[in-house]
Amino acid sequence: MDLKNDLILRAAKGETTERTPVWLMRQAGRILPEYRAVRAKTKNFIEFVKNPELAAEVTIQPVDILGVDAAIIFSDILVIPEAMGLPYQMIEAKGPWFEKTIQTKADIEQLLVAQSGDLQYVMDALRLAKQGLHNRVPLIGFCGAPWTIFAYMIEGSGSKTFSKAKKFLYTHPELSHLLLEKITQSSINYLKGQIEAGADMLQIFDSWAGVLSPQQYSEFALKYISKICDAIDFRVPVTVFAKDAFFARKEMSTLKCNTIGLDWTMNIEESRALCSNKTLQGNADPCLLYADAATIKTETHKMLKAFGPSKYIANLGHGLYPDTEKDKVKLFVDIIKEYQHAGATKILT
Amino acid sequence: MDLKNDLILRAAKGETTERTPVWLMRQAGRILPEYRAVRAKTKNFIEFVKNPELAAEVTIQPVDILGVDAAIIFSDILVIPEAMGLPYQMIEAKGPWFEKTIQTKADIEQLLVAQSGDLQYVMDALRLAKQGLHNRVPLIGFCGAPWTIFAYMIEGSGSKTFSKAKKFLYTHPELSHLLLEKITQSSINYLKGQIEAGADMLQIFDSWAGVLSPQQYSEFALKYISKICDAIDFRVPVTVFAKDAFFARKEMSTLKCNTIGLDWTMNIEESRALCSNKTLQGNADPCLLYADAATIKTETHKMLKAFGPSKYIANLGHGLYPDTEKDKVKLFVDIIKEYQHAGATKILT
Repeated sequence: MDLKNDLILRAAKGETTERTPVWLMRQAGRILPEYRAVRAKTKNFIEFVKNPELAAEVTIQPVDILGVDAAIIFSDILVIPEAMGLPYQMIEAKGPWFEKTIQTKADIEQLLVAQSGDLQYVMDALRLAKQGLHNRVPLIGFCGAPWTIFAYMIEGSGSKTFSKAKKFLYTHPELSHLLLEKITQSSINYLKGQIEAGADMLQIFDSWAGVLSPQQYSEFALKYISKICDAIDFRVPVTVFAKDAFFARKEMSTLKCNTIGLDWTMNIEESRALCSNKTLQGNADPCLLYADAATIKTETHKMLKAFGPSKYIANLGHGLYPDTEKDKVKLFVDIIKEYQHAGATKILT
Repeated sequence: MDLKNDLILRAAKGETTERTPVWLMRQAGRILPEYRAVRAKTKNFIEFVKNPELAAEVTIQPVDILGVDAAIIFSDILVIPEAMGLPYQMIEAKGPWFEKTIQTKADIEQLLVAQSGDLQYVMDALRLAKQGLHNRVPLIGFCGAPWTIFAYMIEGSGSKTFSKAKKFLYTHPELSHLLLEKITQSSINYLKGQIEAGADMLQIFDSWAGVLSPQQYSEFALKYISKICDAIDFRVPVTVFAKDAFFARKEMSTLKCNTIGLDWTMNIEESRALCSNKTLQGNADPCLLYADAATIKTETHKMLKAFGPSKYIANLGHGLYPDTEKDKVKLFVDIIKEYQHAGATKILT
């Protein structure tokens, strides 16, 4: 059970580490030809997600190929709506699409509270990935934050504004809370199952945090993230990444979580001041990896220096973009792993 | 030439006004059945934009129908790429689309610097709107900020990430500056022409400000907005609205402009502190107008109180969403016009 490399777990807990650990959101994905080869074995994305062997295989790939300090289970945040009774399709080059959306109280009442057993294929994938990793690095589990899941369930697809989902908050605040509560309970069951299945760490993704006002974010989003964090209660380290929710950083520092994810618009020093009790994760611009090697090095060093030698997990401020060159991703990882903080003594492990 | 209602101009200049003035981004648009009736007379959006009589007609409509304190010329920010030699189409329910995009130095060199005469139809629309308004309220002219125009010219369409445009910044910084400079010169010519044609006030829209890092925003976006502001040099009040650029507010306070636009994620007190020398505009959530009348009233009063009795122009934090009810929009405008700040003496005009 002892992990050979537990840098990320220790960094999350605020312990001093020999070097800055790194992993990348969407590291198991289209940027790897090895991923595309496995993906080609299945008919569509959802079949792929539901195949534990293949999901475990692509989960492990970036550890071997990129040398990252953690694996994240290959899955999708929308497995939760599906387990609650709202299936989705993943339309190529378009994104998720729900045939049925939530509109009424009856719709909400018909939804199930998902149990971890309803997502057996994810649990199986976690177990297989955990075996395949041979304790080399930690395995990260995840779920979508309740607001983001809610947004897809009402809107039925991606959106620039999520105005239908926001309209529901304004016109049906009580029903909104009812639905958010049901999603939250499902997510808690799901994450607890992931811990049992071998997840060493968890991340909650609030991808559409940025469309809400600070007031609504507090009432309809953070409240439920907080419930999830309380239910996990530090059994494993938890990271909360609320993209674009710059305005919520201070309030997020009160969550029962270890790490706060930052996108690339958030100033490092300011974020440190707002979340001084937390480890931070991020915040390189995914587009930096389009630049030449020298620029990637300069900018990454600047970032590492600004975050300092502890309480930091290097990552991008968003998932890897699909057209990023694999070599540039590897370079970014290597730059971080080789970086020596000024004045820090290299401890050999 | 004396305007009967110059509340917005005076608020922009920091003068005390009898009440808080209000207008709405996208007030001339799909939320009005009267707009849709005029729009139906033309084959497509671009033909509509290029018809000065019809553009002037829909520019004036919201003054009559909604009672707003300013008219904004009906047009599109993408008239600038077109005048520079890069035509676009507006695809129904999808947004703008460019057949040809900018990829090379030769592409940039082939672009023209637009002169105001190249946009005669906008100048004609402004003159007709100015006549039709009979000096009831000020007429606002506008353009897109250079970064936003650049983003469309490289990307060729809307995008969640604008990763192609950002890639160009990272891989071709010098060419980026060359293109941004050309857009800036075109925009200056365009805005100066708008002042001559009757615009009483100008707004620069940086719709895609939020996809850039603070560092890139300063280097590739604010630098050029600043050049435009310097060229206008307070001949008329200028508003800069950089959506999602919360991180740039402090730097924006150094611009030679009167007003800074805020979206609904930006805290009012914090924005006041960061831009204490500026008038602020915004920042109601467009989705608030989906709520019931009582909620709209409560939230709008809260906003008005927080901004206080001066240096404020009420507006949404984004353009009106197309499915907003006209009556709710009118209600929002009326609530603002009727609001009395505590302790403020009502001056009858």
